[in-house]
Amino acid sequence: MQKRVAVVGAGPSGLAVLRAFETARRNGADVPEVVCFEKQANWGGLWNYTWRTGLDEFGEPVHGSMYRYLWSNGPKECLEFADYSFEEHFGRPIPSYPPRAVLHHYIAGRVERSGVRGYIRFRTPVRRVAWSDAIGKFSVTVKDLQRDEHYTEEFDDVVVANGHFSVPNVPHFDGIETFLGRVMHAHDFRAADEFAGKHMLMVGSSYSAEDIGTQCHKYGAASVTFSYRTKPMGFDWPASFEEKPLLSRLVGKTAYFIDGTSKDVDAIVLCTGYQHSYPFLPDDLRLKTNNRLYPLGLYKGVVWEGNPHLFYIGMQDQYYTFNMFDAQAWFARDVILGRLPLPPAAERDADIKAWRGREEGLQDPFQAIDFQTDYVRDLLSMTDYPFLDVDKVAALFKEWEHHKVDGILTYRDKSYPSVLTGTMAPVHHTTWMKALDDSLDAFLGMQEAAQ
Amino acid sequence: MQKRVAVVGAGPSGLAVLRAFETARRNGADVPEVVCFEKQANWGGLWNYTWRTGLDEFGEPVHGSMYRYLWSNGPKECLEFADYSFEEHFGRPIPSYPPRAVLHHYIAGRVERSGVRGYIRFRTPVRRVAWSDAIGKFSVTVKDLQRDEHYTEEFDDVVVANGHFSVPNVPHFDGIETFLGRVMHAHDFRAADEFAGKHMLMVGSSYSAEDIGTQCHKYGAASVTFSYRTKPMGFDWPASFEEKPLLSRLVGKTAYFIDGTSKDVDAIVLCTGYQHSYPFLPDDLRLKTNNRLYPLGLYKGVVWEGNPHLFYIGMQDQYYTFNMFDAQAWFARDVILGRLPLPPAAERDADIKAWRGREEGLQDPFQAIDFQTDYVRDLLSMTDYPFLDVDKVAALFKEWEHHKVDGILTYRDKSYPSVLTGTMAPVHHTTWMKALDDSLDAFLGMQEAAQ
Repeated sequence: MQKRVAVVGAGPSGLAVLRAFETARRNGADVPEVVCFEKQANWGGLWNYTWRTGLDEFGEPVHGSMYRYLWSNGPKECLEFADYSFEEHFGRPIPSYPPRAVLHHYIAGRVERSGVRGYIRFRTPVRRVAWSDAIGKFSVTVKDLQRDEHYTEEFDDVVVANGHFSVPNVPHFDGIETFLGRVMHAHDFRAADEFAGKHMLMVGSSYSAEDIGTQCHKYGAASVTFSYRTKPMGFDWPASFEEKPLLSRLVGKTAYFIDGTSKDVDAIVLCTGYQHSYPFLPDDLRLKTNNRLYPLGLYKGVVWEGNPHLFYIGMQDQYYTFNMFDAQAWFARDVILGRLPLPPAAERDADIKAWRGREEGLQDPFQAIDFQTDYVRDLLSMTDYPFLDVDKVAALFKEWEHHKVDGILTYRDKSYPSVLTGTMAPVHHTTWMKALDDSLDAFLGMQEAAQ
Repeated sequence: MQKRVAVVGAGPSGLAVLRAFETARRNGADVPEVVCFEKQANWGGLWNYTWRTGLDEFGEPVHGSMYRYLWSNGPKECLEFADYSFEEHFGRPIPSYPPRAVLHHYIAGRVERSGVRGYIRFRTPVRRVAWSDAIGKFSVTVKDLQRDEHYTEEFDDVVVANGHFSVPNVPHFDGIETFLGRVMHAHDFRAADEFAGKHMLMVGSSYSAEDIGTQCHKYGAASVTFSYRTKPMGFDWPASFEEKPLLSRLVGKTAYFIDGTSKDVDAIVLCTGYQHSYPFLPDDLRLKTNNRLYPLGLYKGVVWEGNPHLFYIGMQDQYYTFNMFDAQAWFARDVILGRLPLPPAAERDADIKAWRGREEGLQDPFQAIDFQTDYVRDLLSMTDYPFLDVDKVAALFKEWEHHKVDGILTYRDKSYPSVLTGTMAPVHHTTWMKALDDSLDAFLGMQEAAQ
């Protein structure tokens, strides 16, 4: 009987798995039946935008943390699929920092052309995965949201690819329950428009704080204050920006910080990260980790130590994204196909510990980039995923870090060469700070507009 | 072996069940072991307030739809427990329309004094209920949120009391995804403070719209516009209020209605109701209904037709609340204790159909009040719950309806006599429109303040 593989989620990670199997199938391999269960109505995971927050029209937690006017915060050249260039997709070179709609178009284009949509059951969240030792299979219970009914099917392997930027980590601060303005987590931030003229407080000092803060500035916020736990981001901020240490309490509309200073603010965005959440998995199959480059329990960052029929894709902290998910997906596929026999448990465990040991010694972002580069290189060496020059990708990441330091509001105006094609990206027709329209049409109209 | 009963939820409905069993136990009855699973950290259900929206600190959907400055929108004399008067709880008569904290204090006081807290496992949402024909029991799987672990136990009976005002019904309107202001469902509304000076649109014409709209007005909103699907509420609104037919689309900050009129607004509150949601129940045990006075599938509105070991409390549309939940809880308890043998299925079915038939013929709120009065009377006639003069309660409900028509901003300044004690409630020291402090201290300080 044909093997069956369940994939949880049709975002970039889940789609990578579908693409991996489909590529093998088209090359003549005897591949399992693959079924991908997706909660949302469309593929693309976080790259879908929804105006909804909290719970969706079916009462399910809203997956998306996406907001309007989001532009890539890293060069597209660092996330380019090795088997599908931006130039191939758009028919011409495009600038290095595309807005959301353009990236979604690119992600979708690859899988659209490879015809994997039929493998996906949309609006079908996975409710429960249970392993049976007796039959050596998983039973997977899902809900068909439109029919409002559950059903259960059996699978030989399960690939978990539901992402880890969907369930917000929301700490409490003294007085937050009586703050006289709006409080939200970054997960629920949707658009800067309503904050024009407002004084904004971003709690956090990572990507969400930096990006939502600068977006609010771009769309007219009166001021942006960041509150950090460990250390300030330290960028050369515009005059209306300020970095403060940790928020200690709120009284009325006044935020007090642990250094005794205060600031009156209209709205607070808690940019305090996300939780790994796999409510459909039993405790012994469930990854429990914070956001880090090498979570424990996963051989090669992919294969669940407790049961090698269970795979996780994309569950690391990420410099690399789409192409790393590909590398993981090709690896998982080849393990499932039996092309890559797993070493004994003790050897797997030693491998995990070695990677983790190195991860724990990392000192700065540049070392972290090198670490993840080596990790992706290691995965790539084991499969037939097309050649990707990860050293070039790493060099771009480091250049990007420097560009951010040079100008946090101008780094998106830079261009980089494609690692695949060598083509240098054109300069966008409008600088990021002035590009208020983030639509695909506006972005791709660059050449016309530049004339 | 002692029977075991699981109760899902420790809000007013679940607590009524605990109180019912505890009352029987204290009267010498041999009662089952009762375990109540509660997702929140405290009892009180919707009467808890949290500043959180969307997902909570454990990544669970926030249960609460409660907002700051909420005052009872009906006389407390209509919801008084027959076995525990407000006067007994507070040691003196109090005004008829208390704010949230006062009602929570009252609910909690009764169960605190009856010592049922030990039966409740807090921060423990129910994940899955499964019935086994083989052993004639339910297995109930729950998650201990603090330990981040699941466990499963067996129960003879399950009482579902998780409420039905937690999962918002959130329709889409054309252009809502690009509306240039804030959009939220009433479930996520927390306080009117941030809307001072703003133009507000409430989509809906039931209790949420009416109450959130008037609260926004009370705390300084520039205007309040209601949009109705069927008919306007028709109250004698202040000049800054307006009732419009259904919203047809949004462009920028402009709301267009189906009569062709429009209004520029800063924020939209979707007061569009709630969904019944029992994600822990399999399809054949799961109530599927809209919000109505007599859902199908429940004998006496309580016993699941498909399996008489499963009970639902409080799942009706509600004029009656706390004392109706009590009436249902005492009934469920007596069925579980074997004191009330169930009639044969055909007879139960006929009873449901008869009630439903009458419900479908109801013409106005006054008939609806009479219907639910008769329903509660019927339940009360079968158990030893203390005497409650429901005809007096019905008369108060009708008086309340008239008072609302007389003045939607002043009806909360009225007083009513207790159905239990006959004592007329004192007038509050401050009219509702001027009572900006909704704390228990401010409310109970009425006599001092009035001097």
